Amino acid sequence: MKRRVVALAGGVGAARFLDGLTRVIAPERVFIIGNTADDAEIHGLHISPDLDTVTYTLAGLANPKHGWGIRGDSFRCLEALRRLGADAWFQLGDVDLATHLYRTQRMASGATLSEVTREIARALAVRSTLVPMSNERVRTRICTASGELEFQTYFVKRRARDRVTGMRFEGASEATPAPGVLDAIENAEAIILCPSNPFISIGPILAIPGIRDALQRRRENVAAISPIVGGQALKGPAAKMMKSMGMRASAAEVARLYQDFAGVFILDEVDRKQAAQVEALGMRPVVTNTIMRGLRERKALARAVARELGILL
Amino acid sequence: MKRRVVALAGGVGAARFLDGLTRVIAPERVFIIGNTADDAEIHGLHISPDLDTVTYTLAGLANPKHGWGIRGDSFRCLEALRRLGADAWFQLGDVDLATHLYRTQRMASGATLSEVTREIARALAVRSTLVPMSNERVRTRICTASGELEFQTYFVKRRARDRVTGMRFEGASEATPAPGVLDAIENAEAIILCPSNPFISIGPILAIPGIRDALQRRRENVAAISPIVGGQALKGPAAKMMKSMGMRASAAEVARLYQDFAGVFILDEVDRKQAAQVEALGMRPVVTNTIMRGLRERKALARAVARELGILL
Repeated sequence: MKRRVVALAGGVGAARFLDGLTRVIAPERVFIIGNTADDAEIHGLHISPDLDTVTYTLAGLANPKHGWGIRGDSFRCLEALRRLGADAWFQLGDVDLATHLYRTQRMASGATLSEVTREIARALAVRSTLVPMSNERVRTRICTASGELEFQTYFVKRRARDRVTGMRFEGASEATPAPGVLDAIENAEAIILCPSNPFISIGPILAIPGIRDALQRRRENVAAISPIVGGQALKGPAAKMMKSMGMRASAAEVARLYQDFAGVFILDEVDRKQAAQVEALGMRPVVTNTIMRGLRERKALARAVARELGILL
Repeated sequence: MKRRVVALAGGVGAARFLDGLTRVIAPERVFIIGNTADDAEIHGLHISPDLDTVTYTLAGLANPKHGWGIRGDSFRCLEALRRLGADAWFQLGDVDLATHLYRTQRMASGATLSEVTREIARALAVRSTLVPMSNERVRTRICTASGELEFQTYFVKRRARDRVTGMRFEGASEATPAPGVLDAIENAEAIILCPSNPFISIGPILAIPGIRDALQRRRENVAAISPIVGGQALKGPAAKMMKSMGMRASAAEVARLYQDFAGVFILDEVDRKQAAQVEALGMRPVVTNTIMRGLRERKALARAVARELGILL
């Protein structure tokens, strides 16, 4: 595909930005590489929270309040699981459950996560391409004062309350990028890092051998959007993690994490003063409003990024 | 347990009778051996339709119209599975689904079907004991003009329309009765064959090595309730199957199938004339109303059977 735009995506923040992007450029041009290191086996089902959040959002089905899950979903199965004594801390809606059942069974029959992700996206009429970062198993483990935790245990069950001292991506060094990922990066007109957590959403994607190298070769066409605004994360524990790992929680600090492969860095108006620091890292700073309260802001941010990258048709 | 009453059970007909029985004698006395040969793997889940029908009915949760499934259940997950392109011909309610998810995951973790069945029954406050006929895999295959069919494909997907020429219980000859089954039969005060399909509900239980022999040793205390009334099955394809397999569809013909191990045979008022035929088989015929339209009839039938067996306290 000519004029393809690649996006590296985590969950809710990424999905909201992509919702804007696919409204300002043709959705068919957008090739999304989704994080799968927060995938989990829950009640025996293969859950891919980030892939699902992107799919549901682009399908117009996402719960607008949370960003994840299905709008208007019910939780009757989950309540019944609780009655049976199951440890039902992970929110699984009745409609959402179908995705996990479908995925689990298809994969048990030998389908790859790429194949299943494409089937689900097609069935829900998503016009962009969404691929997992890898078809192999990669799992984020969070190091905390109370020991190493599975990602969803840390994030959902314990509500991201533990002090994070580090993380590792189990399986990442032996994993390979999913089919099409390296080729898409190589041939894309531009590559965008969505405003996602640099450690647990973008980090695992970068940890798959070959992906960071491919990005470095495209540095001039890679733009990263800061998920940190005014020292706070737009969503999730990114700012808290930065501090507990001895960094400053700032947009410029995120830029530093990406400096080897991102030529453009998008930061919020409130962080305008950090533009010079970004520039000092050899990146072109772009200051705009990055907070997406509604559809209007999603589109405005997407338009600003697209204009900067010269991909607006 | 002293004064235990054992029941061999299929699905809806059995569940309705057991609902009556557990209201006329203490439910704790009732030990139910459930058919598992119509179990199936659907959407990757282990479904045990007969065990669930009995559990839901005794828990007061069964759908009163169908007899199977949960009263007031919704089907949002199933609709969503259909949207994803799954072959969703098996009705799975959102609440019902929790049972299958729970069972599948527990068994994947190494629990036996006996253990899971007990856990589910306990969680739903069922006071009788329900055990599967075997913890090993046994599957009914239906022989038809269109070839051999999996049981649920024949029964649900194809709506029992195929002409049945025979059946086999895959795995039965290598299976062993679940723990407690033979002991319960040996020590029961009485044993009741619920009004279930003799071929596909009771047949598989009898096919597990050791069970029929154990029943034969208790012949005087075994009573079978005819599922055929006036030449028709109370529920399901029993009458049609009898005819297509070259038998007459009659209560007396069912009695003949059980003559080696049942000393008592309960048949409906409308089949009173067949009592002599039953007697000629060396069985004691008991004529009563066996059609269970509501709770009153369920209890009346149970009381009649219990009185005949001398188990009414």
